[in-house]
Amino acid sequence: MSASDTPLLPMNFCSDCGKRVSLLIPADDNRLRHVCAHCGTIHYQNPKMVVGSIPFWREDERVLLCRRAIEPRYGYWTLPAGFMENSETTEEAAARETLEEAGARIDLQGLFSLMNVPHVHQVHLFYRAALLDLDFAAGVESLEVRLFREDEIPWEAIAFTTVSQTLRLFFDDLKAHRGGQPFGFHSVDVRKRMRT
Amino acid sequence: MSASDTPLLPMNFCSDCGKRVSLLIPADDNRLRHVCAHCGTIHYQNPKMVVGSIPFWREDERVLLCRRAIEPRYGYWTLPAGFMENSETTEEAAARETLEEAGARIDLQGLFSLMNVPHVHQVHLFYRAALLDLDFAAGVESLEVRLFREDEIPWEAIAFTTVSQTLRLFFDDLKAHRGGQPFGFHSVDVRKRMRT
Repeated sequence: MSASDTPLLPMNFCSDCGKRVSLLIPADDNRLRHVCAHCGTIHYQNPKMVVGSIPFWREDERVLLCRRAIEPRYGYWTLPAGFMENSETTEEAAARETLEEAGARIDLQGLFSLMNVPHVHQVHLFYRAALLDLDFAAGVESLEVRLFREDEIPWEAIAFTTVSQTLRLFFDDLKAHRGGQPFGFHSVDVRKRMRT
Repeated sequence: MSASDTPLLPMNFCSDCGKRVSLLIPADDNRLRHVCAHCGTIHYQNPKMVVGSIPFWREDERVLLCRRAIEPRYGYWTLPAGFMENSETTEEAAARETLEEAGARIDLQGLFSLMNVPHVHQVHLFYRAALLDLDFAAGVESLEVRLFREDEIPWEAIAFTTVSQTLRLFFDDLKAHRGGQPFGFHSVDVRKRMRT
């Protein structure tokens, strides 16, 4: 069996002892894993979390977006978000990424969307957030940072489906919110687009 | 600097090329990473997701728990849950773990709790779920599987804080639900208990 039969990223050597790993189904398991025959370590791979915020300036109902200065999707617009780090909480990750990418200080206001992206082994979380001031600035991973009203959002230049879907759901909920409804929590699975 | 200064698990060798890795802060980064000086690979480590369900039998308001047949917490009771796998969604993970550990078929009814456990680099998600029948049975990772009314829950023998907190929140919401309230979504940070 080869790695192309599995959802595993390639792995050649054991990170514990440095010997070559094998691809096999361990005892009491039902999936292929990279296993070290020398030291016995099973190297599990699991999905990663990408966590971000929807920084909102309530006075004129604008949302902060960042234009990416890094690949993938260099030059496209995104909500501030990034890989969650060890030792932090999801809310700490959302606030950290918003500060790092947009220099923006926020009050977090609850989880708004959970987006499964199984073909890249990721789960994206976006928190609603109140921008505390307009003293923001692009960080090293952003070309520019700007506020957008709904009718100004560059929909054709949004970097990721999880971001465009979160923005559409957010502005939908915002309309309902003006009518007195609370913001919802939205769970969406984003599948790979296949030619049919 | 040593690994004890970081939230990283130990890593000795590059899993790409097999050479020794070094612990350093890469350019354009602000955290220590395991980096391979030979092939240039940066080996990031990120939190893992543990996903499970709260299988509920509505007729007599009982919740299904599993007694663990594996460490950690062998012999203690838990909700069915486990590490999310690559290529699946959070809901697929919750249903799979419930089937594997308890042989139970469920209808998922929405995300109920998100529990950050930053000192072990984990995020736990629990979904509300309707048990579809009572034809369940312990899987290889469970010693036994049983239904419990709230006043039967073995609180002193629950395996993990995230499970006991989720169960308490669930039964609180259940009381409110009888009064017509919808079930909530609960976000909790579980910090390491320190001697003070």
